Amino acid sequence: METVYDTRIVHGTVLTVNDAFDIVEDALLCIDGGRVQRLERMPEPADLPAATETLDAEGCLILPGLVNAHTHLPMTLFRGLADDLPLQRWLEEHIFPAEKNHIAPDTVRIGTLAACAELLLSGVTSCCDGYFFENEVAEAVVETGLRAVLGQGVIDFPAPGVPDPSRNIDAARAFLDKWTGRIPLLEPSVFCHSPYTCGETTLRRAKALAGEHDALLQIHVAETRMEREQCLSAHGVSPVMYLDRLGLLDPRTLLVHAVWLDEEDIRCIADKGCGVVHCPESNMKLASGIAPVPAMLSRGIPVAIGTDGSASNNDLDLLREMDTAAKLHKIHLADPTAMQAEAVVRMATAEGARVLGWAPRLGSLEIGKAADLVIVDARRPSMTPMYRPTSHLVYVADGSTVRDVMVDGRFLVRNGRILSFSWEDVGREWKRVTGRIAPVSKPDRM
Amino acid sequence: METVYDTRIVHGTVLTVNDAFDIVEDALLCIDGGRVQRLERMPEPADLPAATETLDAEGCLILPGLVNAHTHLPMTLFRGLADDLPLQRWLEEHIFPAEKNHIAPDTVRIGTLAACAELLLSGVTSCCDGYFFENEVAEAVVETGLRAVLGQGVIDFPAPGVPDPSRNIDAARAFLDKWTGRIPLLEPSVFCHSPYTCGETTLRRAKALAGEHDALLQIHVAETRMEREQCLSAHGVSPVMYLDRLGLLDPRTLLVHAVWLDEEDIRCIADKGCGVVHCPESNMKLASGIAPVPAMLSRGIPVAIGTDGSASNNDLDLLREMDTAAKLHKIHLADPTAMQAEAVVRMATAEGARVLGWAPRLGSLEIGKAADLVIVDARRPSMTPMYRPTSHLVYVADGSTVRDVMVDGRFLVRNGRILSFSWEDVGREWKRVTGRIAPVSKPDRM
Repeated sequence: METVYDTRIVHGTVLTVNDAFDIVEDALLCIDGGRVQRLERMPEPADLPAATETLDAEGCLILPGLVNAHTHLPMTLFRGLADDLPLQRWLEEHIFPAEKNHIAPDTVRIGTLAACAELLLSGVTSCCDGYFFENEVAEAVVETGLRAVLGQGVIDFPAPGVPDPSRNIDAARAFLDKWTGRIPLLEPSVFCHSPYTCGETTLRRAKALAGEHDALLQIHVAETRMEREQCLSAHGVSPVMYLDRLGLLDPRTLLVHAVWLDEEDIRCIADKGCGVVHCPESNMKLASGIAPVPAMLSRGIPVAIGTDGSASNNDLDLLREMDTAAKLHKIHLADPTAMQAEAVVRMATAEGARVLGWAPRLGSLEIGKAADLVIVDARRPSMTPMYRPTSHLVYVADGSTVRDVMVDGRFLVRNGRILSFSWEDVGREWKRVTGRIAPVSKPDRM
Repeated sequence: METVYDTRIVHGTVLTVNDAFDIVEDALLCIDGGRVQRLERMPEPADLPAATETLDAEGCLILPGLVNAHTHLPMTLFRGLADDLPLQRWLEEHIFPAEKNHIAPDTVRIGTLAACAELLLSGVTSCCDGYFFENEVAEAVVETGLRAVLGQGVIDFPAPGVPDPSRNIDAARAFLDKWTGRIPLLEPSVFCHSPYTCGETTLRRAKALAGEHDALLQIHVAETRMEREQCLSAHGVSPVMYLDRLGLLDPRTLLVHAVWLDEEDIRCIADKGCGVVHCPESNMKLASGIAPVPAMLSRGIPVAIGTDGSASNNDLDLLREMDTAAKLHKIHLADPTAMQAEAVVRMATAEGARVLGWAPRLGSLEIGKAADLVIVDARRPSMTPMYRPTSHLVYVADGSTVRDVMVDGRFLVRNGRILSFSWEDVGREWKRVTGRIAPVSKPDRM
């Protein structure tokens, strides 16, 4: 009996991102039941297996789906609302008032759809989000077909949808109860905002709640120098050591930013097996600082890459973020050999899957792994010639080079068009909703 | 008698980049004889002037053409040939041997065409190039319709096309003699490689030669710490002060990189009226250092932006370079208000024109100025919503958002396709030529 695969992708150059970083030129990639079933050099035509659907990827690179390991999807609503400002003014005069006035279930839904459109079109197959009204985020993400870890926000201040902070853990619990085990591609999580906006009790309860559900705990930590200094002053230890003292650090806690670390912090993160998310463009734009990523990698800490929300970056393009990550650490360490292209591709794929708890199920293109993949068109002038595909992915490619995107064996983007939902329909509502949001000051000098 | 303009562009949002940084929404922009003739809010339909060609720019941003103020066009041949290496190994083991083996009139021609395709598609209307076989560069650039300053390389070593360094000034003179006043959009120049690769006599003769032709002298200066230290040791002064001592500094000398400067250097550059080109991505990737751009801008030094050659960046996308420039200085100075979006847009347009000696003829969209302009499509998800167009240009847009490009009143790109030459035809030769160039080591692990 002949095997008929769901999909076969022919003639592409496959970056497997397996342990050996094997690259297969002129490859045959067969997918069935949402998994990679065959991956090899193209056979003779007579030996080509049958498939329901065939995709020609000649002139293209095929890589594991990109993992955007930290974002706030609905913040697309506030993209470019305010820039070039000190962090406190940006937050207090622009972002917090905008959230107060405009964050509601319907705006969160549309903002999430807009974010997912941007993510899919730029090759992101999985994301890790933390925000409020996370039920609405989840409903929207499910519509788009993305794989995601989604965390209901926990903060000891009145927040969108949770006006009474004493109910923040209850809201997170309700979210976990609703979504745990419900949709295969969606994993609920707890997003504890930070050690400076959540008290000890909240931090401990959030971790306990996450533990009960075997859910990931996401937390911003050591993002700014001020945060570190305040923590040292209030608790006598660094933010990381403070979280450790409270028992929050283990492989199911994901540390976001992790900029202001000392040697002891790095050792502790490595010992406890936490994952870290590096958000270089957000850290640069807000002038927060430079995370010691090469030092963390050398200690074996899994470091993924995130774009952060689009109010602070201002896009969700992980390929551009990869380029920035590579160049930022080279200049910071005065070492052009730091953060080599191969390491950066790993961070954006396999390491992303690892910090979200998905290794070894996905993150690389190998037999038996989930078929989350991206096809990059390498024929435009800026991508030629191509002596080393890995180098081009990091230093040249951006989201616009993405042609096709598959999640769990299903194409969500083909030829640069989203298949899983109608951006045209969403776009109309998007225009209406964002039309109500106005910057505090006159935009530019219009 | 009715006025009939060559072109009218309707309904776009125009960033004039005039002194007041005026932005005109829902604009009418009329072009005739290669110049901007009208620029105003859209009139009533009855008052709309006639034009031979009408372009609808609804949902688009219109800005002055981008100026890539420093590049080495033919180095597209070596894009991604070697990365993540120490500067000396990169140069001596990869780039110099590749230049020795592969730089010839035919490869320079095709490499230049490939570079121009990339430049045009990403919104660059003018560039400043320095390389060897510059006659071939010039012939190719003329084919593409780009506006350019092109400099024949001068270096006191055997160079492609100039095996005998004692003839380097003669070669530069022949280039100036051939191209001065010949093609309106092309200005010949002298590209002196650097103060450490050219002796005093060569430096003085190069400047004298440029002066005789009223041509721009381009020179790499103070790019690395080692260059500065060697200059201090050999000449007792910094590279900038050394050039000043030789009489090289005036408004017709363009200082490229200008990374390792002290206060005295900055004061001298300001006093002498030199322009500077900032190449942030090249400086980051090669870990050269961070140029003190905000300090130079505050002294009134005109600073433009360049991508450098695509062997060291690895693309020619000036919009991405703008994003990097803004973020790099914010993080370097720990100040999110540094390098505001408006300043960065000026650097990439009006200041670029200024350092090349073209102000006030072009660089902004104002009545009477040359019609070099770019139309950016702002309708893709990542560009929405748009509260502040300037912010989006810097922090979101990349070359792929460019829809149309006009140089001197003539469309060279429409709907993302090059009109002035056939990339398809060039692409075939490009593939053949670059197929002969192989990296020294096996690419990745293919």
